[in-house]
Amino acid sequence: MSSVLVVGSVAIDSVKTPFLSRERSLGGSATHFSVAASFFTDVGVVAVIGEDFTAEDEAVFRERNIDTKDLERVAGGKTFFWKGEYGFDLNTAHTHDTQLNVFAEFKPKLSADARKSPYLFLGNIQPTLQREVREQVDAQFVAMDTMNFWIESARDELVKTIGVVDALIINDAEARQLADEPNLIKAAKQILAMGPKMLIIKRGEYGAACFTEKSFFATPAYPLENVFDPTGAGDSFAGGFMGYLARTNKPEDMMCVRRGIIYGSIMASFNVEEFSCDRLRRVTSIEISDRLTEFKQFTHFDLDETLANSQFEPTKAKSSTSAPRAR
Amino acid sequence: MSSVLVVGSVAIDSVKTPFLSRERSLGGSATHFSVAASFFTDVGVVAVIGEDFTAEDEAVFRERNIDTKDLERVAGGKTFFWKGEYGFDLNTAHTHDTQLNVFAEFKPKLSADARKSPYLFLGNIQPTLQREVREQVDAQFVAMDTMNFWIESARDELVKTIGVVDALIINDAEARQLADEPNLIKAAKQILAMGPKMLIIKRGEYGAACFTEKSFFATPAYPLENVFDPTGAGDSFAGGFMGYLARTNKPEDMMCVRRGIIYGSIMASFNVEEFSCDRLRRVTSIEISDRLTEFKQFTHFDLDETLANSQFEPTKAKSSTSAPRAR
Repeated sequence: MSSVLVVGSVAIDSVKTPFLSRERSLGGSATHFSVAASFFTDVGVVAVIGEDFTAEDEAVFRERNIDTKDLERVAGGKTFFWKGEYGFDLNTAHTHDTQLNVFAEFKPKLSADARKSPYLFLGNIQPTLQREVREQVDAQFVAMDTMNFWIESARDELVKTIGVVDALIINDAEARQLADEPNLIKAAKQILAMGPKMLIIKRGEYGAACFTEKSFFATPAYPLENVFDPTGAGDSFAGGFMGYLARTNKPEDMMCVRRGIIYGSIMASFNVEEFSCDRLRRVTSIEISDRLTEFKQFTHFDLDETLANSQFEPTKAKSSTSAPRAR
Repeated sequence: MSSVLVVGSVAIDSVKTPFLSRERSLGGSATHFSVAASFFTDVGVVAVIGEDFTAEDEAVFRERNIDTKDLERVAGGKTFFWKGEYGFDLNTAHTHDTQLNVFAEFKPKLSADARKSPYLFLGNIQPTLQREVREQVDAQFVAMDTMNFWIESARDELVKTIGVVDALIINDAEARQLADEPNLIKAAKQILAMGPKMLIIKRGEYGAACFTEKSFFATPAYPLENVFDPTGAGDSFAGGFMGYLARTNKPEDMMCVRRGIIYGSIMASFNVEEFSCDRLRRVTSIEISDRLTEFKQFTHFDLDETLANSQFEPTKAKSSTSAPRAR
C-alpha cells in the first residue's frame, strides 16, 4: 500500500493563458496532487483514464514512482477533458468545454492494497462518490476538496461527506458559500461544526489559513513573479500538505500541520510556474528546501521587548490640543 | 513639534453597513491615522474643518493628546462630508455622496513647529498638495497613501510625489493599476523604480506585504469575527505603522519596519470593530500587546530539521507503476 492515496480526476486539459496556450496537457486533481505528494512520501492514485492516455502521460506518474495499480483504463473510452482560459490577472478560469467521458461512469473500486493506505485525499469529485471511497479505506487521516458546483447541486450529500473526514481543504469563496456567511471566521466555525477537525483555506496569491476548534494559523503565499498557469495549484497544495503529513505521521501535532501548509504552499508555487506538471516534475529537493527557508525569512518578525505595555501612550501631553487655529 | 505629522482629511461620514447605519460620525484619513498613531508617539494633524465640527469631534483628538494647532477651522464653512454604504461582504464601499466643502480650498500652510516633525504621513489627497506639504517639512521619513482616482486623473503629478517619499502605502489593486501590471511582484519593482525605498501593500482581510529593493515581508491579517465598519482601516494601519516607526526611530531597520506593519495591522483590526474611531478610542495598551502576541502565535511555524534535503524522495520504488489496470 501507499502512504497517501488520492482519488480524483486524471484529465486532459486544453489551457489558454494570456501568455501562451497548449492544446493538450496532462491535468486533473489526482495528477497534480500525486506528483506534489510524491516528493514527500509514496503515493497511490485512484482514477480513470481512456485510450487516449499516452505513454508520455503515464511517464509523469512512473517517474515519480506513483502507484497506478488503481488507475483504471477504460477500453475504447476517452479521458476526462477540460478546456479553459485564464484572463489577464490569472485569477479566474473560464471554462469553455467539459467532457466527462470515462469519468461519467467512474465508480472507484479500490484494490485490497489501496484500502490500507493511512492517508487519503478525496479530490474534487461528486460528494457521494467521495464518501464511498472514504468508506472503503481504513485511513487514519482523510482530507477532501470540493467546489461551488457541489455546494449548489449536492449540498446534503456534501455535508454528509464533510462529516466523515478529518480535514476540508477549500478556498475562501467556497467556505463562505458553504456556510452562507461572509465572515470567514464565523464561516469556519460553522464548517467545523459539520464534523472535520480542521478547515484549511486556500487563498491563492494571498496564502492559506487553517482553523481548528482551538487554533488558528495563517501564512502568506510564496511571492511569485512568474505565474504561468494556475491550473492544479489547489491540488498541488493539498499534495504537498498530505505528503508531508503522511511522511511525518503526526497529524495531531499542529506544528506538523503548519509545516504541511507551508510545504503545500511551496508545491503550489512550483506548480503554477509552468503548464501542467512541467515545473513540478523538474523540482529538486534543494529548491523545495530553499523556498522553505525563504518562507521562514519573509514571514519572520520578532517581538519588541523594549516596548512595554505601559508605554503605549503619547510621550507628552500637548498644551495646544484644545484650540484649532482659525483662518 | 510632534514626532509624527499627518496631512489629510478630517471628515464627517455617514456610513451604512449591513448591520447598522449612522448619520454622522467623525472620519477622514487624518482622523483615523492620528488616533491610531497616538498610541505610540505624539502626533500632530494638518487638516481643515468647518463650523459643524463639534466639541465632541474635537474631544476625539484632545483625549489622545493629538496636536491640533495646524487643524484649520474655516468660519462659516462646512466640513468635508462623505456618505457611503458597504455591501454584504463589507469589502467595497459604494459612495453615495461626496461634498468637499472646506476641503475644496484646502491649501495647507504649516506652522514653523509642524515643519520640524521627523515623521510625515501624506494622507490620500491631491498629489500636488501632498508634494507641497512634503516640501514644507524637513522630515526624516515620509510615507504617503493615494487612490485609484489620483492614479487615473493626476498620474504625472502622482508619480512626481511618489518620487519624493520614502514609503508608498497602498492596496493591491492600486499597485497593479499604478504599474499597469497584474503581477504584484513585478508591479512592486516598477513602483520602487519611481523612487520610494519601500512599498507597503494593504490587503484588507488578507494582511499586508512590504517590498524593498532587497527584501520582502508578508503577513496575514488579524482574524476578526466581527467587522463592523471598514472605513478608515487603511489609515489606522498607516497610523500604527508610522507611530511605531517614529517611536523606535530606526526606519532603516527592517525588523522595525516589519513590527510597524504588524502594529499597523493591529490598529486596523481594532478600527474596523466599531463605527468611526469608537473602538480605537477605547483600546488599551494591554489589548494591543495581546494582539501582538496572538500575531506571533498564529503566524509561527518552525523548520523541520529532521527532513533533510536528500529525503525529499519517495521512500520506496513501486513495481506496479507501469501498468494501469484494465477494466
